[in-house]
Amino acid sequence: MGLQFPEEETPGIDYIIPNVDYLEKKKQNIAAIVLTHGHYDHIGALPHVLARLGNPPIYATSITKAIIEKRADDFPNAPKMNIQLVKNGDEMKLSNNITALFFGVPHTIPETTGVMLKTPIGNIVHFADFRLDYDDEGNPHGLEEFEKLGKMGVHTFMVDSTAAERPGHSVSEKTVEKNLEEIFRAAEGRIAVATFSSLITRIAEIIKIAEKLGRKVALNGYSMKTNIQIAQGLGFVKAKEGTLISVEEINNYKDDKVMILTTGAQGESNAGLMKIINGEHRSIKIKPGDTFVLSSSVIPGNERSVQTVKDNLARQGAVVYHSGLVDIHSSGHAPKGDIGLVIKLLKPKFLMPVHGYYFMRAANGQTARESGVLKDNVRLMDNGQVAELTKDEFKITKEEVPAYYVMVDGLGVGDVEEVVLRDRRALAAEGMLVIILTVDRDKGRLLKNPDIISRGFIYLKDNQEILDEIRKRIRGLMTRIPNFKEVEPDYVKTLLRDQVGQYLYTKTKRRPMILPVVIEI
Amino acid sequence: MGLQFPEEETPGIDYIIPNVDYLEKKKQNIAAIVLTHGHYDHIGALPHVLARLGNPPIYATSITKAIIEKRADDFPNAPKMNIQLVKNGDEMKLSNNITALFFGVPHTIPETTGVMLKTPIGNIVHFADFRLDYDDEGNPHGLEEFEKLGKMGVHTFMVDSTAAERPGHSVSEKTVEKNLEEIFRAAEGRIAVATFSSLITRIAEIIKIAEKLGRKVALNGYSMKTNIQIAQGLGFVKAKEGTLISVEEINNYKDDKVMILTTGAQGESNAGLMKIINGEHRSIKIKPGDTFVLSSSVIPGNERSVQTVKDNLARQGAVVYHSGLVDIHSSGHAPKGDIGLVIKLLKPKFLMPVHGYYFMRAANGQTARESGVLKDNVRLMDNGQVAELTKDEFKITKEEVPAYYVMVDGLGVGDVEEVVLRDRRALAAEGMLVIILTVDRDKGRLLKNPDIISRGFIYLKDNQEILDEIRKRIRGLMTRIPNFKEVEPDYVKTLLRDQVGQYLYTKTKRRPMILPVVIEI
Repeated sequence: MGLQFPEEETPGIDYIIPNVDYLEKKKQNIAAIVLTHGHYDHIGALPHVLARLGNPPIYATSITKAIIEKRADDFPNAPKMNIQLVKNGDEMKLSNNITALFFGVPHTIPETTGVMLKTPIGNIVHFADFRLDYDDEGNPHGLEEFEKLGKMGVHTFMVDSTAAERPGHSVSEKTVEKNLEEIFRAAEGRIAVATFSSLITRIAEIIKIAEKLGRKVALNGYSMKTNIQIAQGLGFVKAKEGTLISVEEINNYKDDKVMILTTGAQGESNAGLMKIINGEHRSIKIKPGDTFVLSSSVIPGNERSVQTVKDNLARQGAVVYHSGLVDIHSSGHAPKGDIGLVIKLLKPKFLMPVHGYYFMRAANGQTARESGVLKDNVRLMDNGQVAELTKDEFKITKEEVPAYYVMVDGLGVGDVEEVVLRDRRALAAEGMLVIILTVDRDKGRLLKNPDIISRGFIYLKDNQEILDEIRKRIRGLMTRIPNFKEVEPDYVKTLLRDQVGQYLYTKTKRRPMILPVVIEI
Repeated sequence: MGLQFPEEETPGIDYIIPNVDYLEKKKQNIAAIVLTHGHYDHIGALPHVLARLGNPPIYATSITKAIIEKRADDFPNAPKMNIQLVKNGDEMKLSNNITALFFGVPHTIPETTGVMLKTPIGNIVHFADFRLDYDDEGNPHGLEEFEKLGKMGVHTFMVDSTAAERPGHSVSEKTVEKNLEEIFRAAEGRIAVATFSSLITRIAEIIKIAEKLGRKVALNGYSMKTNIQIAQGLGFVKAKEGTLISVEEINNYKDDKVMILTTGAQGESNAGLMKIINGEHRSIKIKPGDTFVLSSSVIPGNERSVQTVKDNLARQGAVVYHSGLVDIHSSGHAPKGDIGLVIKLLKPKFLMPVHGYYFMRAANGQTARESGVLKDNVRLMDNGQVAELTKDEFKITKEEVPAYYVMVDGLGVGDVEEVVLRDRRALAAEGMLVIILTVDRDKGRLLKNPDIISRGFIYLKDNQEILDEIRKRIRGLMTRIPNFKEVEPDYVKTLLRDQVGQYLYTKTKRRPMILPVVIEI
């Protein structure tokens, strides 16, 4: 039900959602949608696919419910959702023969829930996104719950692989909070903390620390404000009266009484932090003595934009802390050590690594084997494969179902196809050149000098010589075409594309997209 | 004299070279070019800028000389270079009053040389790219040399900041070799090692280990072959007769007698490794039991393509080792601990961090202060600033000189300007739509239905409705234009751009580049 953000290979699109062609055909079999938590990579596709899945009931905890309801406001044409509120510990009948047991798992947003599906062939456990939490002595919390699940018997365990390559155990959120508090205490001027607005658990703690240190907290960025509003409404963020102020008010307080919580820790060009850095923010201007804290990891692909953030903050005199220097971020995903611990408690017969690239899932499979799962019982599946589960088997069938990206771009869902992306990539690399020939339909002669427009290739105004040469070659070409009565546009176009393309390549070693148009009068 | 590879913001270009407009005007003052080593980020711009700098003598060690001579083959129009061969320890008179003392620094390519410029105002030391090397007991090599430099007195020390944020000391190349040997010994099938072809020191060691284990070595990838050839010619790679085989020959040997050394560790789409992975290599097909070793770091920006490499190798059954799992790569750049050690030996009066983003250079400045440089004597300069050095001062002037990227794209140097890149980025994000109106010059009426072509926007063949609507609107527009005698093309174009743009945005929430063309007959 989640969305995936665009990659280098999918320029310009907003996001990618799952392909539900296969499920749509079987929608009468869909008893329920179970949401584990409210992060967009787990709920973002909901309004796009819900109707196609027959609008089944959705099971979700309270904060997840609030987040999907908020998102539904932007999709007035999506069907009204039928949400069944659950809390961890609940057991719910999803269909005649499937019951769901919900249980809490630690993650970075409250009320994340794992689920055990009790089915006639056995219990299937999905652990959502999770990590382990540790107390001050370094002992993990809540393992008894997982042990209980193990005792019920687990047919298949589906386990988060996002951090499966990382050795060791989770950095405790306690450590993160302790380090943040130290940095905050040392700051003499204003403090700005940039983090994901979805890390509600941490944001709640940061607000608590700010109160302890006598700082007001201003929220900056749309998603920061809406997420905190939702979390406050449900009691997950407990700010005292007067703690939260608007960004406009920060100048009413001394610098050492102010903290700003902002979006944009990944260097996103339109997020709150970038506006501050670029001097475009109406109320917040960086000044020497400000302390900026990037309490987040760097999502692969964002390295350069985060580098720009750090550079520009430092250039403007701010003191910058980031998680590469000190533990001020802990991933929401369990590393190898935590995963091994949980597998040993659940003792599943089959293990299916989910979430994360193939290599990470393969690493998770290896952890499973080291933690007691039989070598042959690790199931590495790829998108589009189908498995059949029976009492004693987990069989990957030969069936293949459509699983290719469905791209959302503006209002279009799925209308940006590979051919459009290929053009975008080509245009980005080499630009294009449109050549318009206006010809006499009967005599095939040029009625005027060819019109040429170009973008992203070379700046034509500075390259009159190339323009003249192209026009000269086209005129030459047209006179050399054997005397014919009628223009054959396709023939002329191919000729133009080849000859002009060849000339430009020789001249510039570049291959712009050449788009010939023949206007017959 | 180096080149920089393109970034996300500079799509389609080949590479970026320095702007020498300022130096060109002062070329009569340029006494020499000193090259510290043969990596492209230090020598790649040479053929492009040499003539503009007045072709001064170039000082270089033997392998650097061989590499720039090889590169010069591709630039027949560049001036013939005047290369002065130096070896570490040499002292050379560059001009009337400037002498250069060359000294070896450890890096990943042989004969990397630092330089001390002895000038009337004092000694300026540039340390090239460097790290420290350690013996088996963990003691750094060659510090006496640096201590000697310090004793001569150092006015300004220019120091590599690439790894300045990393705490601690360099991973010893000995450790890397030990780990590689262990992995190689454990491999039962073929071994393929992907690394930068410029890491000649490591490649030389890998070939030695291969010989020890009785494996033949096949080189894959153009730059791997040419670099090893150069290094062999100069004695830096000493392969026994018969060790090196061609990739075509690998199938003549048992799997456990073969090692492949390949380019493409960054997942570059046209490099050797990618051809193997995609099944496009004529001689090398992956089979289960192959061991692939990625002995390199991941250059920021390449995270996703390296992930693809790991995924696809694992999918095809290869065992994969990478430097995230075990120390099989050591950076050529000194981390904080090493830098501090060297600063303490050199005792410079002024310190100027070079190489690396601003944040890294600022971190290096901090290291300098912690290592005894006076707080006020750290000089953080940005591209385009000018400093004036006197006996007692290092003054950053107010002068600003052109320093913006010069982009090389095909045969063009500097002709891809910001306007072209802006168009490329826009085309990549939203695509474009060309609208061609053929109008009667006198009556201003449309002579035919408007022609529309589009790329990278939506696939028009699947969206006939939108096409029809655009045409309908254009016709409506033209009839509503107050009756005029002559067409005013600019007015019509602006109208079209606005109205069609607005319609498309409402319909699709996308803003393709709209290029109206008015053909008057």
